[in-house]
Amino acid sequence: MFDPTLFQQDTICATATAPGVGGIAVIRVSGSQAFAIVAALFVPFGQHTLGELPVRQAIYGRLQCDGELIDEVVVVKYRAPHSYTGEDTVEISCHGSLYIQQRVLQACLSAGCRMATPGEFTRRAYLNGKMDLSQAEAVADLIASESAAQHRLALSQLRGGYSAEFNTLRDRLIQFVSLIELELDFSEEDVEFADRSSLLQLADDISARLTVLMDSFRLGNALKKGIPVAIVGATNVGKSTLLNRLLGEDKAIVSSIHGTTRDVIEDTINIDGVLFRFIDTAGIRMTEDEIENMGIERSYRKLEEATVVLWLADLSGEASPAIDPALVERMRTPIQDKRVILIANKSDEVSEKRIKAFRISLPPELSALPFHAISARFGHGIEELKQAVSIAAHLSDRHEGDIVVSNARHYQLMQDAAEVLDRVRSGLRDGLSGDLLSLDLRHAITLIGEITGSEITSDIILHNIFAHFCIGK
Amino acid sequence: MFDPTLFQQDTICATATAPGVGGIAVIRVSGSQAFAIVAALFVPFGQHTLGELPVRQAIYGRLQCDGELIDEVVVVKYRAPHSYTGEDTVEISCHGSLYIQQRVLQACLSAGCRMATPGEFTRRAYLNGKMDLSQAEAVADLIASESAAQHRLALSQLRGGYSAEFNTLRDRLIQFVSLIELELDFSEEDVEFADRSSLLQLADDISARLTVLMDSFRLGNALKKGIPVAIVGATNVGKSTLLNRLLGEDKAIVSSIHGTTRDVIEDTINIDGVLFRFIDTAGIRMTEDEIENMGIERSYRKLEEATVVLWLADLSGEASPAIDPALVERMRTPIQDKRVILIANKSDEVSEKRIKAFRISLPPELSALPFHAISARFGHGIEELKQAVSIAAHLSDRHEGDIVVSNARHYQLMQDAAEVLDRVRSGLRDGLSGDLLSLDLRHAITLIGEITGSEITSDIILHNIFAHFCIGK
Repeated sequence: MFDPTLFQQDTICATATAPGVGGIAVIRVSGSQAFAIVAALFVPFGQHTLGELPVRQAIYGRLQCDGELIDEVVVVKYRAPHSYTGEDTVEISCHGSLYIQQRVLQACLSAGCRMATPGEFTRRAYLNGKMDLSQAEAVADLIASESAAQHRLALSQLRGGYSAEFNTLRDRLIQFVSLIELELDFSEEDVEFADRSSLLQLADDISARLTVLMDSFRLGNALKKGIPVAIVGATNVGKSTLLNRLLGEDKAIVSSIHGTTRDVIEDTINIDGVLFRFIDTAGIRMTEDEIENMGIERSYRKLEEATVVLWLADLSGEASPAIDPALVERMRTPIQDKRVILIANKSDEVSEKRIKAFRISLPPELSALPFHAISARFGHGIEELKQAVSIAAHLSDRHEGDIVVSNARHYQLMQDAAEVLDRVRSGLRDGLSGDLLSLDLRHAITLIGEITGSEITSDIILHNIFAHFCIGK
Repeated sequence: MFDPTLFQQDTICATATAPGVGGIAVIRVSGSQAFAIVAALFVPFGQHTLGELPVRQAIYGRLQCDGELIDEVVVVKYRAPHSYTGEDTVEISCHGSLYIQQRVLQACLSAGCRMATPGEFTRRAYLNGKMDLSQAEAVADLIASESAAQHRLALSQLRGGYSAEFNTLRDRLIQFVSLIELELDFSEEDVEFADRSSLLQLADDISARLTVLMDSFRLGNALKKGIPVAIVGATNVGKSTLLNRLLGEDKAIVSSIHGTTRDVIEDTINIDGVLFRFIDTAGIRMTEDEIENMGIERSYRKLEEATVVLWLADLSGEASPAIDPALVERMRTPIQDKRVILIANKSDEVSEKRIKAFRISLPPELSALPFHAISARFGHGIEELKQAVSIAAHLSDRHEGDIVVSNARHYQLMQDAAEVLDRVRSGLRDGLSGDLLSLDLRHAITLIGEITGSEITSDIILHNIFAHFCIGK
């Protein structure tokens, strides 16, 4: 196994709080020399030295370097293994100016620390057995979480139920391979410890469980990245007005709370704690214009990504029927297995009667769809529409305790394991020899083991996982 | 006196660390109900409740609201008056996602907190006698500090030597007024406790000290906002290349450390721990063009702000003399009492001989100036130029322990006090009656007292001071 001590001889430091200026900032120092390094810089108020003071105690004093006062700080010591990293750790709370943060870090470096690489604290926590790999990944997800759903996913992964599921799966595979290998050991005696059909049953069961877990990735990934929603409809029916209305309301709420990174992900909104991601589509209409048709084709292709489709019609015009039958025809395939909500926009300009007439005139495949009359411009019916989007995502179908996979690395490992397992199943049916089956099974065990890191995990994999962390975690 | 309890009945909360996403974030809760509020949300691991656990101890546990887990957090209690605010305080360290920060704050609000206003923690620290007003202001300066010089200023103000200086000044004024008022009490007996000339001496002494302190504001303000430096010269001599070179080198250094807010203050650079602020000036040349002359006039006016002037010449051209004598004439007044450094740019294109010839040809008022040959384009001589700028600012003139005023509010109060004191001095000379003198002196005492807040400080003044703090401090 890869030797963790190689990477843990030195003591590392980094700011653990958000970058930038705040009232206070916390600098974390971890490693075998953490106490000695901070003791060289920190003079507690009172008659003690840092070494004499108890652990887990907030100690107030002066941080200085080369005789120059840097700041008055609060320091907390954590003794290995009772710390986040499992190593001796000191947390220094200083005033939150960039200059002071920088000076504290410089002082720690000059006293013998090195700067932590991204995720290195959590990596050490993993290497010291404080958490498994999927829990370490959950820490990064937790920090990145922006919605209640993401937060719940990360927290449940962090708390270990998730790992337990994969450990169980792996145990069942180990039990499976041991049965086969036991046969191999006694192969000359022609003993059969388990008949092939019950082995096949075992493989089928494991495969089925794996499939359930893989299926949850669609939801997990959507919860993490936002459930994809497409707004489609003819040109000028008010698609962007609706989008702005949805985004605008959400933005106002978000920025009143924190006013930060929201701008980057322009087109996601949070409905009841779940993130929805809006896919931009060009207006769709039946046309002979070749260039325009290319744009429309692209819209159809983008539709494929969507889970929920908002189909917007404008009843305020003269057109009758309000939705072009040729368009209905053309949309039939793209919206198959999508959850479609039909929307009549510009309700402020249209009579109740017109809306009723429209619904009656709908072709049968549209008349059963959820229907909403709204005014995107004036905000009428938007709240109800949001609820409809939330319901259309069918999130309530799942049970509270269900394991949901949201990590692409885990999904990939499961896919690979499922493929190997399929080979084992057909091998069992075809009477393949035990040693070949065993080889495949051991491969599947390794793959599943890599999810929680209980199997040998290469430095490259670890590097890739932790490189996505922020520095200081 | 203004009643502090009016503002301190409720318990307040806010994120104390920088806004945004980090590994961890610290939420501070302060007020009489702080322990009870956090106890309602926090379940320590182990068999204790928050109330049973000792203060100043890092306690690990679950933060939950309405039965739902928000995060696993570390909590530290501080009991009044042994906390930053002087009130019962709890600091909650949670994972640093925006979502979690927001949920923790929401949980605190639902348990009975209200959101802290900007600077409210420090305001409470002041009202509870944990620090005086100038120290509270130093906290804001410390957090905003971006250079070693700003940091030193704020730290020395925070540590109390600054306050002591103003308290001494105020004590002397009180002594002064008591002498005069004693005379008033015994006025019918025609006693004179101090002769007018020694009173005048006392007033002169206090005035002189006040002047020294006021004079330090020019430096203090420059250290805080950056010492103003203007780069002047004819068009196309390489002013912006030089500025970019100076900024670029500094930027690279800064962003390797933190990569943050640097962009906003595009044109300051840090030389040996002191901030220099570059003033943009248009190229100056003697012209008849009216529009261009307007721009050039503006450059002259901007020059007035500068402490240091970098006068750039380009020797690579044919022009002889390299600096237009008419320009020398025109610049005579604007650069009076500025510290001017003469620079020959494009040293890479020019021979040593040409540079020597240039120096000899200089008019007498320019030949004594510090002179540097540089290549802004290739970075030659830039390091030496920076040192020259640093020396030109004459920062080394002051002594380590000197009080430096950097706060505009303090400066304004001192100016007002000096004016009142001038009135007292001429009153003494003119034999003004004691009761009128006493009135003025009491006014001066109030003004000086407002610096440290030892005099009645109105709620409006407090509001203005603390409104500039960040929330959470």
